[in-house]
Amino acid sequence: MAPEEKAIFVKLWDKGYKINKEIDRFSTGNDYILDRALVKYDCMASIAHAKMLGKVGILSKSEVGQLERALNEIIDLDKKGRFEIKQEDEDCHTAIENYLTKKLGNVGKKIHTARSRNDQVAVALRLYYKAELAKCEKLTEQLISAFRLFGKKYGSIKMPGYTHTRKAMPSSIALWSGAFIEAMEDDLKLMKNVHDLIDQSPLGTGAGYGVPMEIDREFTAKELKFKKVQNNPIYVQNSRGKFESAIIGSLSMVMLDLNKMAQDMIVFSMPEFGYFVIPQDLTTGSSMMPQKKNPDPLEIMRANYHVINSYELQTKEIVSNLISGYNKDFQLTKEPIMRSFEIVEQSLGVAAIIVSKIKVDKKRAAEGLTNEVYATQKAYSFVKKGMPFRDAYKKAAESGK
Amino acid sequence: MAPEEKAIFVKLWDKGYKINKEIDRFSTGNDYILDRALVKYDCMASIAHAKMLGKVGILSKSEVGQLERALNEIIDLDKKGRFEIKQEDEDCHTAIENYLTKKLGNVGKKIHTARSRNDQVAVALRLYYKAELAKCEKLTEQLISAFRLFGKKYGSIKMPGYTHTRKAMPSSIALWSGAFIEAMEDDLKLMKNVHDLIDQSPLGTGAGYGVPMEIDREFTAKELKFKKVQNNPIYVQNSRGKFESAIIGSLSMVMLDLNKMAQDMIVFSMPEFGYFVIPQDLTTGSSMMPQKKNPDPLEIMRANYHVINSYELQTKEIVSNLISGYNKDFQLTKEPIMRSFEIVEQSLGVAAIIVSKIKVDKKRAAEGLTNEVYATQKAYSFVKKGMPFRDAYKKAAESGK
Amino acid sequence: MAPEEKAIFVKLWDKGYKINKEIDRFSTGNDYILDRALVKYDCMASIAHAKMLGKVGILSKSEVGQLERALNEIIDLDKKGRFEIKQEDEDCHTAIENYLTKKLGNVGKKIHTARSRNDQVAVALRLYYKAELAKCEKLTEQLISAFRLFGKKYGSIKMPGYTHTRKAMPSSIALWSGAFIEAMEDDLKLMKNVHDLIDQSPLGTGAGYGVPMEIDREFTAKELKFKKVQNNPIYVQNSRGKFESAIIGSLSMVMLDLNKMAQDMIVFSMPEFGYFVIPQDLTTGSSMMPQKKNPDPLEIMRANYHVINSYELQTKEIVSNLISGYNKDFQLTKEPIMRSFEIVEQSLGVAAIIVSKIKVDKKRAAEGLTNEVYATQKAYSFVKKGMPFRDAYKKAAESGK
Amino acid sequence: MAPEEKAIFVKLWDKGYKINKEIDRFSTGNDYILDRALVKYDCMASIAHAKMLGKVGILSKSEVGQLERALNEIIDLDKKGRFEIKQEDEDCHTAIENYLTKKLGNVGKKIHTARSRNDQVAVALRLYYKAELAKCEKLTEQLISAFRLFGKKYGSIKMPGYTHTRKAMPSSIALWSGAFIEAMEDDLKLMKNVHDLIDQSPLGTGAGYGVPMEIDREFTAKELKFKKVQNNPIYVQNSRGKFESAIIGSLSMVMLDLNKMAQDMIVFSMPEFGYFVIPQDLTTGSSMMPQKKNPDPLEIMRANYHVINSYELQTKEIVSNLISGYNKDFQLTKEPIMRSFEIVEQSLGVAAIIVSKIKVDKKRAAEGLTNEVYATQKAYSFVKKGMPFRDAYKKAAESGK
Repeated sequence: MAPEEKAIFVKLWDKGYKINKEIDRFSTGNDYILDRALVKYDCMASIAHAKMLGKVGILSKSEVGQLERALNEIIDLDKKGRFEIKQEDEDCHTAIENYLTKKLGNVGKKIHTARSRNDQVAVALRLYYKAELAKCEKLTEQLISAFRLFGKKYGSIKMPGYTHTRKAMPSSIALWSGAFIEAMEDDLKLMKNVHDLIDQSPLGTGAGYGVPMEIDREFTAKELKFKKVQNNPIYVQNSRGKFESAIIGSLSMVMLDLNKMAQDMIVFSMPEFGYFVIPQDLTTGSSMMPQKKNPDPLEIMRANYHVINSYELQTKEIVSNLISGYNKDFQLTKEPIMRSFEIVEQSLGVAAIIVSKIKVDKKRAAEGLTNEVYATQKAYSFVKKGMPFRDAYKKAAESGK
Repeated sequence: MAPEEKAIFVKLWDKGYKINKEIDRFSTGNDYILDRALVKYDCMASIAHAKMLGKVGILSKSEVGQLERALNEIIDLDKKGRFEIKQEDEDCHTAIENYLTKKLGNVGKKIHTARSRNDQVAVALRLYYKAELAKCEKLTEQLISAFRLFGKKYGSIKMPGYTHTRKAMPSSIALWSGAFIEAMEDDLKLMKNVHDLIDQSPLGTGAGYGVPMEIDREFTAKELKFKKVQNNPIYVQNSRGKFESAIIGSLSMVMLDLNKMAQDMIVFSMPEFGYFVIPQDLTTGSSMMPQKKNPDPLEIMRANYHVINSYELQTKEIVSNLISGYNKDFQLTKEPIMRSFEIVEQSLGVAAIIVSKIKVDKKRAAEGLTNEVYATQKAYSFVKKGMPFRDAYKKAAESGK
Repeated sequence: MAPEEKAIFVKLWDKGYKINKEIDRFSTGNDYILDRALVKYDCMASIAHAKMLGKVGILSKSEVGQLERALNEIIDLDKKGRFEIKQEDEDCHTAIENYLTKKLGNVGKKIHTARSRNDQVAVALRLYYKAELAKCEKLTEQLISAFRLFGKKYGSIKMPGYTHTRKAMPSSIALWSGAFIEAMEDDLKLMKNVHDLIDQSPLGTGAGYGVPMEIDREFTAKELKFKKVQNNPIYVQNSRGKFESAIIGSLSMVMLDLNKMAQDMIVFSMPEFGYFVIPQDLTTGSSMMPQKKNPDPLEIMRANYHVINSYELQTKEIVSNLISGYNKDFQLTKEPIMRSFEIVEQSLGVAAIIVSKIKVDKKRAAEGLTNEVYATQKAYSFVKKGMPFRDAYKKAAESGK
Repeated sequence: MAPEEKAIFVKLWDKGYKINKEIDRFSTGNDYILDRALVKYDCMASIAHAKMLGKVGILSKSEVGQLERALNEIIDLDKKGRFEIKQEDEDCHTAIENYLTKKLGNVGKKIHTARSRNDQVAVALRLYYKAELAKCEKLTEQLISAFRLFGKKYGSIKMPGYTHTRKAMPSSIALWSGAFIEAMEDDLKLMKNVHDLIDQSPLGTGAGYGVPMEIDREFTAKELKFKKVQNNPIYVQNSRGKFESAIIGSLSMVMLDLNKMAQDMIVFSMPEFGYFVIPQDLTTGSSMMPQKKNPDPLEIMRANYHVINSYELQTKEIVSNLISGYNKDFQLTKEPIMRSFEIVEQSLGVAAIIVSKIKVDKKRAAEGLTNEVYATQKAYSFVKKGMPFRDAYKKAAESGK
């Protein structure tokens, strides 16, 4: 018998039969890795759940205490990177219950009373989303601050404004950086709205059809600082994939702004324009061409927008055409949202570094203001003398030939 | 010379040269058709603009009056389907300015003072979005009402709840319909948030770099009942595609709920289940199989979710990797958002009809409640006698074999 | 009673009950408009089907003759734009059968023997796809020819090659245009492969489970010039959405090449580069800025790539998570593929015009070849003297500072 | 100074300045992890490259020998999991060159003569794609074999065929499994076509603009068993993202078939149907509901289709709206294609297990053949007596009420 065969698999749903190992690995997927991010939140939710079980009389005061201490222990271990989730554990929820049962015996076996892995997963994810959204909001605010500083430093510099990738009218660094500040203020609104939407406690809804005993959902919601209880148990499950895609949707808006910022910086730092100067330590080189200083981080940032969009879509489509209630397909929405948070947070952080370091070349920007960008002003000089706009436009066009 | 060659093309940007005709048709695309929906909003915005030009002294009181009357005339013509936009007009904005100039001469030529087609398009679209979002919100509320009535009528009927497409625990029509009500209440929030976000007046920002004269943007914003002025002119252009995808994103959430509703109704009205009964007049037949009564509208509704998702994505990707400022690519975001509104409004309307007509078969629903759905209750009966949950679970599993 | 109420709806599946009118409109969708493109192909397939019914003894020689004449009549009417499909017809297939029955009485009622609307739709679409793919292939070949001419005219002109949107090494128009020629030769392969894949006759598979009588599928396949019979009737239905997305997938490859061509032309025709010169009649102007000459057709072409991608995705997702056999959802795959063909054909046509008209500015291209593009050659001059490449690279980098 | 600060970063493009560390990490991304799959292929290509350099006289025979031995050493180390790529290495290409230089001194510094990291990455990926596609093809063939065995075992069993998720006509397991066999034979064609398309050697094209010395591209192409040389150096770079999405596109077709297979098995193994029986060891349980046996692997397989679709799209969009030549954005196409191969290979493997283990319940399948599925046959019995089909259809519909 191979050594791994001897390993004791203790799944939450263990009832005496063994699952085919390849199938098991396929069904588990990356959960055991992804779930590292959830250990803390699952423990927090389990503590609140244990307290509630104490309140309604299922657990004694001492049992609640034992569980709370053991769960805090796990939180500490996890902080130090020492709480392990093995592939055969399936996920963090199993690893945690197994830890409790190993440590506390019968008391551990009671933690899962009045809940299902379905609402347990949902509540841990919800807490995680709230924390990650808060991070994204903070990073967006920091990027706004970086843009404000940038605007203060360089705002008065004039540069050409473009439409259709062609010089259009006079613009300025203040106008340009102001566009991103306003854009990100809108993004913040969108993130906060989604944050507010998902701020509902799913705990206590079991597998989507409630639990066959009296519990106190308001209590756990308050303990975990949720704004409200998500009332309908079927909707708790049906909102999986929905809340995730709403979140990624809001993140994709800030990524669109970064995509545009990156494209502006890449194009306008080309030697042919020279409006922006990217410091050497933000560029990388070529393995073959000695002269190259490439704007790699901006290119990666630009590309990340598409990655986020595809993750949003993935989440939306995975949960489509399914009947109500939990479906295992939902599990696959974990990776796209976790990856999305990671990518967006990195991108926002790097964007702030770049905005704080990139320089504006006043001379080159001034040189960009060639005659053609003043054609509209010329037309308006005729308007001010009383000519109807459409005639003034034609006269200016004529004289510009 | 072919007769169409003689046609007088008067483009807003006409300055004496002719564009290649195939290129012209390609660049214009479907705008001249899609823009039928915008005529009214463009006229409303033009009236506000004319009044503002009067206020700041560019137009005389009489000129403002003439423009206002002519624009109201166009609104009336349009209401009767008699305001035509020809392909060679390019879009409604040109057709309207040409109408004004033909009718009012020099006064018509002045309407475009202090604006560009860029902010003109943006403001007309913004008004259109607000009106369409309001429609979607109202239709969602009506569907919620239909569900409430349905719940009142059939709510007390018990039926099995499913997870993993397998019978899980006892559920009820009340629980099922409540899930959709709560889901759509969340959708309403999302729509209202987006509605609030886009409620900013872009008028007065020109081509993205302001206009070279003093105007009163607060005045036009108030006239058009916008909540606020969208301040930064570059951001006005950069928000194209962004606002659209945020809107479609919110619509896709309600479509996800309809997708699930449709899938539930399709599956649970199969003769093998029989919980729902779809009245004959909501079904269609087969050209070959005489017995068939097919749930076509539910299948179309299910499919529409994917259509909306692809439109959201289209909008997001069209505006990617572009430098700041208007790019013609933006024009292509019109069709996906207009089609999205159309599809979502139809789907919501049809969903309300279906919810008001579909029936529940109490007997078949009861028959669905076979033994297995009570296994969890059995486990909990042991828990109530003091057995730790995990042991109770195993005992119930054992006895169910 | 409203006049439209009195209209005689004769659906193929009519069996005495009336469908709710809003539901009917929703289920029919745009089919009655889209199907205009299919009339010809449905008639061709119906003629082959009638001949086969004659061959196996279901129809007499005279009946086959009557049907063939009437169907050719419809083809003629359609060519002149005079064969109408009304919304209440649902689709072209119903309109055609109704025409036959009205004209030929009982003989018309026999045309649908041994087929279902499912295989009828499939065969008409398949013929349509083959014709449209052939058009796309031809247009791609024409664009390749245009590029060859362009290369002949301007090929010898040197210009800088870019990586990371930064000058890299010396390139030439020959190299640049050659890249598109090779790219499109690969596209042609992809299109031909897909063309070959879908060249299978679905006729005779009924609704997906065959027809309860002996027919000759090889005969109709040969009549319609299909390469082979698509054997399995369930697969005929299951391949809906699959073949469509494979087709759009191949089209999206040529659109990616056009997207890049457009981006190159837009960027390198900016005054800041000036390598390409877009003739005035391929540009449009601004409503406000008199000087503007915008590359609108190139921008639309660039954006079209994203539209095609979203249509491919739409098609793929619409048919997901469905059980085997026809589902009404499939109907919604018609619009994305029809629109895709339309957009790709227009784009290829316009691209050929542009390639034949755009000019290269030899002087500006030469001015682009600044010192830095020769750094690699410098490193190689050290290599040729025996220095290891990595040291030569560093020496060249050093000397370039 | 922190210890990591002291670490000697030796990038291929090192020329004496240090990159900001956060920026470095961001630009490198997961490459150093993903590249583990490429070590072998990079070494194979480097050996061919070294031989070619020997052939054209850049390297001596002994130098070629040293390089070949050292590269084979790396292949061996890698096979044992002992060739490490550190984050500061950036990617496998750097790690390999550094290894060679450390081991062989000046000889190592010569390996990069006449190539750039751009063509080096392209050739390693191309070899990897070919190997992975071959795996996918083989796994698809194995799944076809599994279906053939399944068909032999159960093919004669009759079951109802469905359209619109409603019973339609009699079908059989033979028909059902035959549909998947034919579908996958088409998938094989698509994969082989793409395999054939990408079978072009990119080696020797440098950074997209050739290398400034004479080399023998035919030689390396033959050494590496490529069908042909990919001639145009710009196209080599422009085909990045294109070839990847063509590959994922073909994989998505087989995933669509698995998606449908999974949905059929999930639905028709519900107790309400019971046609299929999923053995216990292919199911998992619930943490709360003791009776549950859930078809998790089928649900994951179903969901994987959407993941692949989003990866295809990601790849397509990442490379959009970019000018010709390499852009760093391309780097992000590595992860989606690598993940796609992994997911598709796992899914195909698991599908073969399931097809070989799932059972058909003859009795339940027969019970599914209720009266309604014979309505079409009834209509045809009238046709056989000479009644026009449309009348026969109505008569059968009437009698079925």
